[in-house]
Amino acid sequence: MRVDGRPFRTIWSPEPGCVDIIDQTRLPHRFETRRLVTLQDAATAIADMQVRGAPLIGVTAAYGVALGLKRDASDATLHEICATLRATRPTAVNLQWALDRVKSHLTSLPPPRRLSAAWDLAALMADEDAAICEAIGDHGVSLIAEIARSKPGAPVNLLTHCNAGWLATVDWGTATAPIYKAHEAGIPVHVFVDETRPRNQGAALTAWELGHHGVPHTIVVDNAGGHLMQHGMVDLVIVGTDRTTADGDVCNKIGTYLKALAAHDNNVPFYVAAPSSSIDFRIRNGLGEIEIEKRGAHEVTHMTGETSDGGIETVRITPASSPVMNFAFDVTPARFVSGLVTERGIVVADAEALAAAFPERL
Amino acid sequence: MRVDGRPFRTIWSPEPGCVDIIDQTRLPHRFETRRLVTLQDAATAIADMQVRGAPLIGVTAAYGVALGLKRDASDATLHEICATLRATRPTAVNLQWALDRVKSHLTSLPPPRRLSAAWDLAALMADEDAAICEAIGDHGVSLIAEIARSKPGAPVNLLTHCNAGWLATVDWGTATAPIYKAHEAGIPVHVFVDETRPRNQGAALTAWELGHHGVPHTIVVDNAGGHLMQHGMVDLVIVGTDRTTADGDVCNKIGTYLKALAAHDNNVPFYVAAPSSSIDFRIRNGLGEIEIEKRGAHEVTHMTGETSDGGIETVRITPASSPVMNFAFDVTPARFVSGLVTERGIVVADAEALAAAFPERL
Repeated sequence: MRVDGRPFRTIWSPEPGCVDIIDQTRLPHRFETRRLVTLQDAATAIADMQVRGAPLIGVTAAYGVALGLKRDASDATLHEICATLRATRPTAVNLQWALDRVKSHLTSLPPPRRLSAAWDLAALMADEDAAICEAIGDHGVSLIAEIARSKPGAPVNLLTHCNAGWLATVDWGTATAPIYKAHEAGIPVHVFVDETRPRNQGAALTAWELGHHGVPHTIVVDNAGGHLMQHGMVDLVIVGTDRTTADGDVCNKIGTYLKALAAHDNNVPFYVAAPSSSIDFRIRNGLGEIEIEKRGAHEVTHMTGETSDGGIETVRITPASSPVMNFAFDVTPARFVSGLVTERGIVVADAEALAAAFPERL
Repeated sequence: MRVDGRPFRTIWSPEPGCVDIIDQTRLPHRFETRRLVTLQDAATAIADMQVRGAPLIGVTAAYGVALGLKRDASDATLHEICATLRATRPTAVNLQWALDRVKSHLTSLPPPRRLSAAWDLAALMADEDAAICEAIGDHGVSLIAEIARSKPGAPVNLLTHCNAGWLATVDWGTATAPIYKAHEAGIPVHVFVDETRPRNQGAALTAWELGHHGVPHTIVVDNAGGHLMQHGMVDLVIVGTDRTTADGDVCNKIGTYLKALAAHDNNVPFYVAAPSSSIDFRIRNGLGEIEIEKRGAHEVTHMTGETSDGGIETVRITPASSPVMNFAFDVTPARFVSGLVTERGIVVADAEALAAAFPERL
């Protein structure tokens, strides 16, 4: 996507032997790229969340292997590199999957061929992710186009939660891909962006990427979505998913379920952009089978932002003695999901439709 | 209620001719009282939100009249005093109501009797508010006691939104009154406190008052309530109301409706503490008839808190170029309200029951 007119991906190799990323910990107040030259650079970028979002973490790890192999491409080093990268975010499923894929491919090659193969594979994985997201956009844009036809001249109002944007992927994003496609097609859109407490990925990242690409948007607090839908101000909700069950339940950022309830109560379509990599066919009942990660209190008790003199400061916003509970995700039952926008098309959120769309995964 | 064992109200007259308040703009990081000696002190306290919450604003205005009359108790001065106070928060219905009451009472008296009558009336209004809140507590505690009987030994888990606590009233609060009553009766309670973006009244005020009174509680982001209810972690939701319609619709802090939806979807009782002063019998359909206040963007874009070195700092948390929309309230339709806890008892949220409970208001 574009940043003030200039095309960017979240990760790219500007010249042989190094990789550039956008340092997402600095957004929205600073737009800075960072050059990764060593394995340790890549590990730090993942661990410190300079890159985040499942697809982008996986691709960064793939590039990290290539950076590590510059020194030595032996089996022992390859094993050590993968262990280092795995440890950066041990619970990130996509990270483990990406490293399994890279390791398996490289192990099958003689050491002298591994370095260039690692670079090629990392670039391929980046392109694959961008292609999957773009396909989600191509399918999802039909939902927006249909609404646009019903209200000629007026913008289609969307609402999204968290950042399932291009910053979480290599390009396009998942939930944002149909929005960018609509914008490129000249369909007028306007996006309500949920702030997304506690980490504020909506206010900090989604608003930033939409704004710098030129997509009209408005930041609202997470509390506002119900009111907006009651008053006909939202035509379509579209969110991402961290994990989708075989029955179509959606585990996504905490608060997604509340928006699904409001959409249901107000007859607003609620779609989930779900790359097939997010679908876990081993589980059916999201509420019963997915354990929700509890994260540290600091995300709730403290807030980081820019002071009036341009510095970056962190402040405590809660009483020092009050306990905090911080669940990272919630589960939206499939009955509230109007459809799953996958790279193969829009699929009904139930077991039969998902099995029919991805028969090879069963 | 108590602050670290010491009993407090939010407003009191420590000696003739002056009034003390808790400066709520300093909470939760500083507990400071402030002495009001002049009319202008009272006007500033209301305008700058050192006091907030409809009942407390009304009582502060009543005391403000008494402070203003120290100089001169003529009709002209009384009129001017009321005009000054009315202008502090022009849209606060309770402020206008309180001033009408005070002005009408004092105008009926000869000027020499007005000063002491003003003090007496302000004190009476403070006591009346405390009594109404305590009555809400006495009725509402039955809901908590009943749940407690069904889970012996385990705490009753409540969830509340915003601050309908003693800090918003003179004492007891509305939504918190049943909680304090249960706590005093030795019923084990635990309160999930919604942060309540954008002004964070939950994290800043409700958590502070519960904590310093000794009530077990946990701060959660506004996004979390649905997940908590899906997993049986909430036995009862109780919130306040800014305005209740004749049909039982509830206009309360933005985000209340989302919690009502989650309570409904998970069979969690959803009660609203509604002093009869909040009931507006002139309107029926909350969604159609109540215009929702839009407030400034700054509440969403900036956050104030305490820095690690103990200073108070305000930081921007959104991209400087992103627009913001900030609705202050939403409407929860009566069909999602399990009951209204009034000072006359628990009333079904419908026109018939409300009319029967408050026949003199029709």
